Amino acid sequence: MDFRFELLYQSKKYRARVGRIHTHHGVIDTPNFVAVGTNAALKSLDSVTVDALGLQLMFCNTYHLMLQPGTEIIRQAGGLHRFMHRTMPIITDSGGFQVFSLMYGTVKDELKSSGQKKGDNLVLNIAEEGVTFRSYRNGDIMLLTPESSVFAQKDLGADIIIPLDELPPYHIDPQKLEASLHRTHRWEERSLNVHLHNKQGQAMYAVVHGGIDPSLRTLSCQFLSRLSFDGFAIGGSLGKTREQMFTMLDHTVRQLPEDKPNHLLGIGDLVSLKPCIAKGIDTFDSSHPTRCARHGLVFTAQGAQKIMAPQHKSYFFPIEKDCACFTCQHYTLAYLHHLFKAHELTGYALATIHNLHFMVRLMERYRQDIIHGNL
Amino acid sequence: MDFRFELLYQSKKYRARVGRIHTHHGVIDTPNFVAVGTNAALKSLDSVTVDALGLQLMFCNTYHLMLQPGTEIIRQAGGLHRFMHRTMPIITDSGGFQVFSLMYGTVKDELKSSGQKKGDNLVLNIAEEGVTFRSYRNGDIMLLTPESSVFAQKDLGADIIIPLDELPPYHIDPQKLEASLHRTHRWEERSLNVHLHNKQGQAMYAVVHGGIDPSLRTLSCQFLSRLSFDGFAIGGSLGKTREQMFTMLDHTVRQLPEDKPNHLLGIGDLVSLKPCIAKGIDTFDSSHPTRCARHGLVFTAQGAQKIMAPQHKSYFFPIEKDCACFTCQHYTLAYLHHLFKAHELTGYALATIHNLHFMVRLMERYRQDIIHGNL
Repeated sequence: MDFRFELLYQSKKYRARVGRIHTHHGVIDTPNFVAVGTNAALKSLDSVTVDALGLQLMFCNTYHLMLQPGTEIIRQAGGLHRFMHRTMPIITDSGGFQVFSLMYGTVKDELKSSGQKKGDNLVLNIAEEGVTFRSYRNGDIMLLTPESSVFAQKDLGADIIIPLDELPPYHIDPQKLEASLHRTHRWEERSLNVHLHNKQGQAMYAVVHGGIDPSLRTLSCQFLSRLSFDGFAIGGSLGKTREQMFTMLDHTVRQLPEDKPNHLLGIGDLVSLKPCIAKGIDTFDSSHPTRCARHGLVFTAQGAQKIMAPQHKSYFFPIEKDCACFTCQHYTLAYLHHLFKAHELTGYALATIHNLHFMVRLMERYRQDIIHGNL
Repeated sequence: MDFRFELLYQSKKYRARVGRIHTHHGVIDTPNFVAVGTNAALKSLDSVTVDALGLQLMFCNTYHLMLQPGTEIIRQAGGLHRFMHRTMPIITDSGGFQVFSLMYGTVKDELKSSGQKKGDNLVLNIAEEGVTFRSYRNGDIMLLTPESSVFAQKDLGADIIIPLDELPPYHIDPQKLEASLHRTHRWEERSLNVHLHNKQGQAMYAVVHGGIDPSLRTLSCQFLSRLSFDGFAIGGSLGKTREQMFTMLDHTVRQLPEDKPNHLLGIGDLVSLKPCIAKGIDTFDSSHPTRCARHGLVFTAQGAQKIMAPQHKSYFFPIEKDCACFTCQHYTLAYLHHLFKAHELTGYALATIHNLHFMVRLMERYRQDIIHGNL
């Protein structure tokens, strides 16, 4: 089955839409949430458990897998799906995001820093050829180019791959941002050419950049739309506040081809989801629900609940009474409270299962709401 | 179903025997291995997974559960089985072992220390009434008596409970050892009386003491056999070497009533199991297989294997080719190697599942071997 996007319903009121992405490893209903399994594992769970949750797309990070175990090992294993025993679709990134995060710190840190903050000098050089950096694991000097990133992603064999891009920080002067955008476009085109030479049944999404400059975002959409990408990811800084992000998304999504799927990189907190879906976003990846779970925060219809809150010590009911997840079907919040207090690893797994189930159900509901005009 | 021990086969050559312990929560085939789930959780796994492994008896620690979440909470939850959602039998200890471990350090540390090593002064006083200690969690001063230990274990509601005993160190002068033994006997009798007042369908095993003095071991067997305990645990120091332990076990087990089950406290490493079974031991508890798993050591017919050994990086086969465990059915050793290298929690769970499955199968085989005279 070749990669294909099927538009099932287009909302009249908003840009929100319901669709289906067809891949070799099955269907991804959109809009949908994409959980992050950085190291070819969703933290604290195994793939059989994750498959059973119905999580249709999973994000793995090429950067981490390049350093450990190395993409060559995963190629020898028969690709990422066989290596981690996942039967459903996978998306990998180019590795660029992590390399540049090393340089600027996390997105949050950089936003707070007024542009002064620099990482641990792990990025040694950015040139036309690619980016040279130092492995955080063993200090090896490595060169990531558009070509090497695609080769790595060919080794991994995910259903959807991403071309190498530069991640400019929020605090950057306009001329540098424009120069970065053009280099990113050249990198993406080089990535695409390598990919088209040996598609291996994979799809490649372009990454739209342009930072917080609407005209550069327009330019990026126009440039990338002319190339034969299978979909569009939205990357780079979208502003300092959620409102700025929504405005920029609105501006960007309306300039993307309607017959191709789009993906919002790295955003998936509960507050942002619905407005982003309304702007026409098809998929989101975020480690937010799984990270929250490991920090003792479980999602409910009444908002996130702290597992360790004192009143949960003797709350002998599931996290949510009507929840059908494995955790709520077998364990009480009082037991989870105890597991977290006792630092038992079991607690992380049970909380993660609940939050992921919550996300899967929430997305199902959003898709229904769009179709029924209730979003 | 009342607690009952059924002797199925008595080996002629050795004291080894095959039996069945019947409890309210099902049968325990003996000899059998008992995994340790200190905090009402087998580290990294949930109870549904553990039940599926066929692990017929699980050991939980009253001391830890008294401090977190408190046995009153577990009583309110409907007992330990409901709290942790375990359907199969559970055994709890008195809490004494942990209190005295705090005083002397671990058994290993104490053996190495020539008797000089003392814990962090968490044990404040040992008197006829009981032992006063300080909670390692919050510094609260607590008194553990034979009565309070049994009340705590009534709250927990395990199938098998244990009376309060004193754990004398290996390095103790003979007079003190004898005085300790007599106090332990008085404590055990008091524990039994409280238990008999309200059996709640639980069984109580006596704990045989006497350290490394054969005549005191004999005295302990005789004293405790006269009381209406349902079985016998063997506790205290059994010597510095494995050979000393086997000699002392041989001496002790032959003085215990043959129609009641016995349990060896805290021993369950692979080397000791078979000789202990040959001496007539019915059950063993040990955190060895689960601790090994979390430290990257998996059990195979060819001995324990290091997951992180370099040659496993590209070993694209299960840990054991003919193993029917969930881990070996779905994942390769190369993937586990990667998970451990990447410090992914998933790896601990998968390795633990394999080692516990290995123990369950090993015990099945030992039972068959006894019956067929091949042990």
